[in-house]
Amino acid sequence: MRAGPSQEEIRKHNLGTLLRHVHVGGPRSRAELTSLMGLNRSTIMALTADLTAAGLVREELPRDTGRAGRPSLVVRPETARVYVLAFDVGVDRLAAARIGLGGVILDRREIVRAREPFDLGRTVATLGAFARQMRRRARADAVCVGAAAAFCGTVDASAGLVRSGPNIGAVDAPFGEELTRRLTLGFPVSVGNDADLGALAEHTRGAGRGCRDLIYLHGDVGIGGGIIVNGQLLGGHGGYGGEVGHMVVNPDGRPCGCGSRGCLDAEVGERAVLEHAGRYGEAIGRDGVRAVVDAADRGDVMAQDALQRVGGWLGVGVANLVNIFNPELVIFGGMLRDIYLGTAAQVRSRIATRTLFPSREHARMRTSWLGDDATLMGAAELAFAQVLADPLDALSRVAP
Amino acid sequence: MRAGPSQEEIRKHNLGTLLRHVHVGGPRSRAELTSLMGLNRSTIMALTADLTAAGLVREELPRDTGRAGRPSLVVRPETARVYVLAFDVGVDRLAAARIGLGGVILDRREIVRAREPFDLGRTVATLGAFARQMRRRARADAVCVGAAAAFCGTVDASAGLVRSGPNIGAVDAPFGEELTRRLTLGFPVSVGNDADLGALAEHTRGAGRGCRDLIYLHGDVGIGGGIIVNGQLLGGHGGYGGEVGHMVVNPDGRPCGCGSRGCLDAEVGERAVLEHAGRYGEAIGRDGVRAVVDAADRGDVMAQDALQRVGGWLGVGVANLVNIFNPELVIFGGMLRDIYLGTAAQVRSRIATRTLFPSREHARMRTSWLGDDATLMGAAELAFAQVLADPLDALSRVAP
Repeated sequence: MRAGPSQEEIRKHNLGTLLRHVHVGGPRSRAELTSLMGLNRSTIMALTADLTAAGLVREELPRDTGRAGRPSLVVRPETARVYVLAFDVGVDRLAAARIGLGGVILDRREIVRAREPFDLGRTVATLGAFARQMRRRARADAVCVGAAAAFCGTVDASAGLVRSGPNIGAVDAPFGEELTRRLTLGFPVSVGNDADLGALAEHTRGAGRGCRDLIYLHGDVGIGGGIIVNGQLLGGHGGYGGEVGHMVVNPDGRPCGCGSRGCLDAEVGERAVLEHAGRYGEAIGRDGVRAVVDAADRGDVMAQDALQRVGGWLGVGVANLVNIFNPELVIFGGMLRDIYLGTAAQVRSRIATRTLFPSREHARMRTSWLGDDATLMGAAELAFAQVLADPLDALSRVAP
Repeated sequence: MRAGPSQEEIRKHNLGTLLRHVHVGGPRSRAELTSLMGLNRSTIMALTADLTAAGLVREELPRDTGRAGRPSLVVRPETARVYVLAFDVGVDRLAAARIGLGGVILDRREIVRAREPFDLGRTVATLGAFARQMRRRARADAVCVGAAAAFCGTVDASAGLVRSGPNIGAVDAPFGEELTRRLTLGFPVSVGNDADLGALAEHTRGAGRGCRDLIYLHGDVGIGGGIIVNGQLLGGHGGYGGEVGHMVVNPDGRPCGCGSRGCLDAEVGERAVLEHAGRYGEAIGRDGVRAVVDAADRGDVMAQDALQRVGGWLGVGVANLVNIFNPELVIFGGMLRDIYLGTAAQVRSRIATRTLFPSREHARMRTSWLGDDATLMGAAELAFAQVLADPLDALSRVAP
């Protein structure tokens, strides 16, 4: 705090806070913002005027207040004008979206990815083509204020470097750098771990809204995790925190792509589900997993047995996380949504028998609200971070 | 930030920051404080004058600067005058200390605790007697500015309630309330989980100084954990976070006092060590564990085998935590210091084979610097929190 923040810093902070309110919470009347932010009406008016002049929000009369007297103007994010580009590299798909302020998907592209070793050049070319197509379709006065990508691997966020992605075959790939070069936006493309970004998205506008301590478990082919501790994403020393998929739950268990054995990833991942169900080599990916859950539902004994085994290990993993983090919420996303729906009983039973009572007493289990868009939406939140931190300055770096 | 902090809030913050610098870092010259805090000399002078007038620090000429020119005055904490009372309830001992500003133990009492079910009344009476003795021996002008206790169980810190302590037999014990009533200090006694407070102490003035992401593992009879994430103690939703001792490392393993099986606590705790070594029923506690480590050192095959087994499970647990938290440091404290010294090879080998490379690349293992005082020192830091947050106000609530 030093000698205290300057007037300029206070203004910047307040502009960012107001913008975040309408970005996350949707249109708000000036009166609501006044009470949410604890500022007086004239300050809110001045802040809104600045954001309006910058083209980040607009003010409108509410449709019908149903109340007498002069209605409070409603502040809306300029969703169609101010947008970011978000990307998602999963094992089985590449996705891209143009997402407007307020978290609205304005445009979206997706392509199936073959299960081949990661090819940096081809991936970046595909995502670059998506970006070009989507930007061409944007309104003439639209501005791109950020770009970010989710990647199914361990990411050094400071360098945009994918350190490792056992399920996709990526090692030390300069993904952020290449994507930045390809997009020529004039600013760098941020990169984050997909499960971390999924956690961010669910925390901001999904099942975890308002929770300060949550765990998001993401199933792709393997299992990733993103953890929110006291409202902040757990980074760890190098930013690699949250790799709960490689927590050992069964020490002598199945071999894992990481070189260890019995990791949550190995015991609960796609291959475990399919092999236990005797369906390995048939349909893969989400369809394959969903087919097992559906078959179990219809009474297929082998599929039921597969889910029982997988659910037990998932339960041990979740129980460990409940003891370690005392979370308010555990969210199951990606392919784990399907698995959780088929194994909730096993998971709950493990939590009941393998956690301390105080640690579990308020812990709820939920499936992702954002579904397959969680990681992509999380990339958008990462891309919006700059404009929310310093709204007026961020506009000086919009893409040409 | 609202309309920005008031001058009074800024002053309070700066007074607390300056006091924390000399409390944690020891005596500092005004010149050092000026540069550490990024404030100008006259502001530092004014802050120091306020803290001096309050009796929290004093200014002295340095002994010998070895430099020409007018030396900068040195600001020292009033260690002998301003103190807190710290308590520690472990399975095998009750300890209390009078600890001066700057973290100096001025007086200390300790008594062996028999392994009987927890008796709230007797425990509080013993600690109360310690406090009385120590306060009687304090200087006439000394002031007690806080009091806190570490407890070997799950603690609801807001209520000072010990929710559970399987190793000591405590359930829903209103420990903080009773101790507050007994001490009649005029302010409440804070209570925290012992491993959490050990983490706080090692982070503040022990092996973890300067680290923002660390894990402190505390061995008493069982295993507890305190985790620092981005410089802050991990609390979780109800404040019960960090119960790493009940992470399952061996699903079909030894029964645990918590009702589960194969918890880190059960596989690495005192009883596991003694039973594997064929010494259960002989010496217990720290002496018993140390005897096994010493015997292994001397070539006792059974003791070596015991450590090998225990070390393997400890290694699996630490590897899981490295994957989950990507810490800079793991600190082994309490009885785990001895165990780690006898099992470092197993622990390191599990980390090498069972973690992702990026997660482990900067993770170091260390034994506690504060040793058996870590939890007690952590209680003192908790007790000092109030005076560091608002130095002048806290003095208005000193004990009579």
